[in-house]
Amino acid sequence: MPRYGFLDDYSEGVHPTVIEALSRTNLSQQKAYSNDEFCEDARRLIRDKINAPGATIHLVPSGTAANLISIASCLRPYEAIIAAPSGHIATKESGAIESTGHKIIITEPTADGKLTPEKVGTAFNQNSLFAHQAKPRMVYISNATEMGTVYTRSELAALSTACRSLDLLLLMDGARLGAALTCPKNDMSLNDIYNLTDVFWIGGTKNGALLGEAVVIKDQSLGQSFPYHMKQRGALLAKGRILGIQFVTLFNNDLFFRLARHANDTAAKISTSLVSLGFKLWAQTETNQVFPVLPPALVRELQKNFDFHIWEHLQDGSLVIRLVTGWATEMEAVERFCALAYAWTKRSREGYTTMEKL
Amino acid sequence: MPRYGFLDDYSEGVHPTVIEALSRTNLSQQKAYSNDEFCEDARRLIRDKINAPGATIHLVPSGTAANLISIASCLRPYEAIIAAPSGHIATKESGAIESTGHKIIITEPTADGKLTPEKVGTAFNQNSLFAHQAKPRMVYISNATEMGTVYTRSELAALSTACRSLDLLLLMDGARLGAALTCPKNDMSLNDIYNLTDVFWIGGTKNGALLGEAVVIKDQSLGQSFPYHMKQRGALLAKGRILGIQFVTLFNNDLFFRLARHANDTAAKISTSLVSLGFKLWAQTETNQVFPVLPPALVRELQKNFDFHIWEHLQDGSLVIRLVTGWATEMEAVERFCALAYAWTKRSREGYTTMEKL
Amino acid sequence: MPRYGFLDDYSEGVHPTVIEALSRTNLSQQKAYSNDEFCEDARRLIRDKINAPGATIHLVPSGTAANLISIASCLRPYEAIIAAPSGHIATKESGAIESTGHKIIITEPTADGKLTPEKVGTAFNQNSLFAHQAKPRMVYISNATEMGTVYTRSELAALSTACRSLDLLLLMDGARLGAALTCPKNDMSLNDIYNLTDVFWIGGTKNGALLGEAVVIKDQSLGQSFPYHMKQRGALLAKGRILGIQFVTLFNNDLFFRLARHANDTAAKISTSLVSLGFKLWAQTETNQVFPVLPPALVRELQKNFDFHIWEHLQDGSLVIRLVTGWATEMEAVERFCALAYAWTKRSREGYTTMEKL
Amino acid sequence: MPRYGFLDDYSEGVHPTVIEALSRTNLSQQKAYSNDEFCEDARRLIRDKINAPGATIHLVPSGTAANLISIASCLRPYEAIIAAPSGHIATKESGAIESTGHKIIITEPTADGKLTPEKVGTAFNQNSLFAHQAKPRMVYISNATEMGTVYTRSELAALSTACRSLDLLLLMDGARLGAALTCPKNDMSLNDIYNLTDVFWIGGTKNGALLGEAVVIKDQSLGQSFPYHMKQRGALLAKGRILGIQFVTLFNNDLFFRLARHANDTAAKISTSLVSLGFKLWAQTETNQVFPVLPPALVRELQKNFDFHIWEHLQDGSLVIRLVTGWATEMEAVERFCALAYAWTKRSREGYTTMEKL
Repeated sequence: MPRYGFLDDYSEGVHPTVIEALSRTNLSQQKAYSNDEFCEDARRLIRDKINAPGATIHLVPSGTAANLISIASCLRPYEAIIAAPSGHIATKESGAIESTGHKIIITEPTADGKLTPEKVGTAFNQNSLFAHQAKPRMVYISNATEMGTVYTRSELAALSTACRSLDLLLLMDGARLGAALTCPKNDMSLNDIYNLTDVFWIGGTKNGALLGEAVVIKDQSLGQSFPYHMKQRGALLAKGRILGIQFVTLFNNDLFFRLARHANDTAAKISTSLVSLGFKLWAQTETNQVFPVLPPALVRELQKNFDFHIWEHLQDGSLVIRLVTGWATEMEAVERFCALAYAWTKRSREGYTTMEKL
Repeated sequence: MPRYGFLDDYSEGVHPTVIEALSRTNLSQQKAYSNDEFCEDARRLIRDKINAPGATIHLVPSGTAANLISIASCLRPYEAIIAAPSGHIATKESGAIESTGHKIIITEPTADGKLTPEKVGTAFNQNSLFAHQAKPRMVYISNATEMGTVYTRSELAALSTACRSLDLLLLMDGARLGAALTCPKNDMSLNDIYNLTDVFWIGGTKNGALLGEAVVIKDQSLGQSFPYHMKQRGALLAKGRILGIQFVTLFNNDLFFRLARHANDTAAKISTSLVSLGFKLWAQTETNQVFPVLPPALVRELQKNFDFHIWEHLQDGSLVIRLVTGWATEMEAVERFCALAYAWTKRSREGYTTMEKL
Repeated sequence: MPRYGFLDDYSEGVHPTVIEALSRTNLSQQKAYSNDEFCEDARRLIRDKINAPGATIHLVPSGTAANLISIASCLRPYEAIIAAPSGHIATKESGAIESTGHKIIITEPTADGKLTPEKVGTAFNQNSLFAHQAKPRMVYISNATEMGTVYTRSELAALSTACRSLDLLLLMDGARLGAALTCPKNDMSLNDIYNLTDVFWIGGTKNGALLGEAVVIKDQSLGQSFPYHMKQRGALLAKGRILGIQFVTLFNNDLFFRLARHANDTAAKISTSLVSLGFKLWAQTETNQVFPVLPPALVRELQKNFDFHIWEHLQDGSLVIRLVTGWATEMEAVERFCALAYAWTKRSREGYTTMEKL
Repeated sequence: MPRYGFLDDYSEGVHPTVIEALSRTNLSQQKAYSNDEFCEDARRLIRDKINAPGATIHLVPSGTAANLISIASCLRPYEAIIAAPSGHIATKESGAIESTGHKIIITEPTADGKLTPEKVGTAFNQNSLFAHQAKPRMVYISNATEMGTVYTRSELAALSTACRSLDLLLLMDGARLGAALTCPKNDMSLNDIYNLTDVFWIGGTKNGALLGEAVVIKDQSLGQSFPYHMKQRGALLAKGRILGIQFVTLFNNDLFFRLARHANDTAAKISTSLVSLGFKLWAQTETNQVFPVLPPALVRELQKNFDFHIWEHLQDGSLVIRLVTGWATEMEAVERFCALAYAWTKRSREGYTTMEKL
């Protein structure tokens, strides 16, 4: 049985139709720096999908680039951004935001990775006492969150209202926006997100692209200055066509959403299976990340054939692991995983029962 | 006759064998963030080619990223980098170096885009008077230069010696290093460059890759810290494999060098042809950039069928244009270009002669 | 009865002998930028006091300047500094550290404002998982802390050992170092602090100077580069003499320590008095800051004649106020304050007793 | 004969009435961070003097702080500032502006240190080609310039008009604004400067203060955010009173202007005297800096009794020296200097004449 990985949603390459598109368009001479016709098409397709003719869209090579450029573009030097303790920018980007000069204000911990008007309000108040504090000016959220949970429309609307009343901009990191928008719990459209945020981005890397994220900007003047920001940060690719071709391919015929749905489905299968065996979840499985709480012996057994991250060591000795599925996850591998968990659990409980009897 | 472009060396996609390699490796599960086996292979291949087993090699998505990360990695906050007025970092990167906090000290103008020990020495002396000046600590050169010229081994050795005597690091921007190393005038190996510089990078984007530059670092401790710098600047791709696969493909069987040679050959053809028609060159054609000085009427004629940049308006009314060839430049298009120039020139001179006679 | 302020330790000007010194030296022509003879004398005096002939000492105009320059000087771009949630750099400097590009990693909360090897170790481990986290490289502590507490020699030694074992530099913010070194609990000398830290600074502004802090640097190469850092940050005063004259005056005949002792004594008087009336303290009074927990009615009564900050609203309705004394605090004002508290408390309890009886 | 210095205009302390004022106000308890009554008074006095009731005024400790905070406050990250090659920010501030992330675009050389609409226009055009260049957004001038020259009203008006037509802000560095406004050539008022610039600052350090510059800001929203910028850069002094007291003293009864006039008068005396001896000037003496071109032997003679900087070594062997006078320059020392130059010149010419005769 070959090893299989649930480490993340970027272990494989790119959806094959993207490679076909790269091949087909390869020798066409195009303008550089995302002024090519594929980027034009991609921007138009995405604007249509959002139903926002006035939106400015820019394609950048990485999620960290999307975040750091968006934040540095929106803030004055002394302004700060509010994020949850689990926010990607706060913990997993090597200080990228701070390297642009901006403070990240961390809110009180959240159980599910989501910010609320209350948490934002508290962080705002504690940091608005006087000019000796970096001034809160933006709120950062991820959808899906780093824990795989999603915002409902009413949750995002409440957050949006709170931000506007406090003169805070709202930025949504959409590294896994595909998964969020296609999960059963979702009740939002791209248009809702466009209306309720100031800047958001649609992640390609984690949903079938080789690289690339599409930043969607409402403010026209900010949108126009973005190419400067991108060039300055090393994020304006000479052959921007590679980004355009991918987004055109992904947004044609809703491939993007079909890929995301597959990721969610395979995650749901794993989650349901483990729950039916009696295991708890550390966070609800709403999208393509599963965080089961498992006994160490089962984890060791699974590690013989599967790769995944151990996420937390709980005080009772059990382990939280993280299983991530993606557009390329094979359902057959998922089934093998579930079967192994089932077999171990059955064996283990029989043993236990036997011992009990004795 | 279809239009054809000599705007730059990044108007087309990628060498087809790269697309084949992407396709072939696509579904293999790989570690993220350039820890995959392709990146490993690429680094090993490049190290072998340089003959530098101790070199650290990191792959980044763009030339600006390569420059800004290299410079920010090497300098203390108050240290500055010396560059020629034509240096890419000084004029074409939207203040990317300054955005990392570092001053670029501009030397006296150079006729050919190359720095000399004298020019570096003068800039160093004028900026080493006291602590009220940013302290020179690094020298930036490009090879090939922005004017298409190349350094000889003795020129680079002299510069290297000068830098060491002044405690200056030497960085070589190799966006067009392929062209430099395969041009007739070149007498250097990659190993020479490794020994004579502190950091240099090998450009993929302008020589057959979709994106990607390989930064070569001598200092071990600097090399080890590079992943932090890359992540922090948004330049650590989740699917770093795309960079690895490309460099593996390009450095196998010296494809990289064959592509560069083709670019040089097509440029030489254009250059020779125009010179034989009696036109002057604004800069010697040593690699894949040609800067002929042409009469406006000829430029207008050429523009009917070809795209290129007008580079300078000279005082006598003539124009400097820039023609760039690349790995994908079609020799047939080059021939059409030369034929058009020849026809116009002949016609024009006959007319002139006729008029003269009258 | 005139109003009197316990808002902070910088409400008054400067010790009168400093004004005399400014007047006496005023027309002497001196070299600029802290190359004058007074700065020379100040540096020598402080080095003698520390008993560290090899120490480099630089005088800067403000505490925030001392912190931001020290931190930016020591760290590489991707490196971070660990601080307590109450650390001045984390909450009261408008993002000054982040504006230099560096992340502040916040430890678990501390009851007394002090860091321990455990807290540092936990923060270090949680931020050393991989290159996607800003790399911890320095620890920031204040002595006295923002809560008025001080480190003992053994506490600092333990922290120093922990830092060295984790390859972390240790920076001590000494805005109130005078108060720390002269308080009853202190068992450290300046020499101890020099040996146990990498950089520390001696605060003038909060202990009798108009402005100015003396940064003490062990590493010679760092020390030599400091003037560049200072100039670059706008912290190299043309008439650096003003800093030199003040530190010479303050370190002659231990005036600096006598002033600090007076601040501590007046704070102790207030603290003892309130404790004897039965009020609790939110933090131990170890130096010149007192944090009593008082009923709102008493706070209102005190506010009629005194200025101070309300620090916290506790859940039981009582208030934490902050009273700060300084070199210029008048003992007579302290006595008036204590008398007012005594009178109100007595009155209030009698009333209560009377009501009880009914 | 005691040595005397013409090195700069900050070799002495502060005008004695400032020391008196410091002494008189010393024990008054005041609000911190420039919220004290002296700063209030200073701001009001300066606003009155400018005749600009809507101006926001902030006091900062150094000229570099004034420049870096003003520039960082006005620009977006990718925007650049245009300056003359001799501009203070370009050459004498250790990369302070670049450390805030902004590029300085250097214009063509100027003979007199002054920018013109043409020079600004050329620099603007060369840097407005596309998003690969830092975008020009502000122009920096000094008045008096680094060469001691001043702008006339019509020159400044022309520059202002040019800036507005190119959407460029105009910043005037007024480190020596006192000297500029009181020199014979000046035909501008503070109100003119306020109307023709966007931000300017009035230098205290070089005209009778110990430290301190008053930044004058027209834009209300920028003005309100300035305290954040100041705190973040370490330029918000706890005892801001020291700045307030000095500016109140200097702007009462026009002391500021009388001091500047004295500096100009002593410089004029030196300049006239040397010119009358037949020596040339490297730059016109318009304010308090004199740049005579002298033979090395005279320079050596003068160095026996006077300190000054050698500014340039000219190709014919002669030297440009810089003599700076200030508020505290003693007319008696000036006379000694002139007498020495006269005596040497006379002696030297007699010798020469004698030799000629032979």
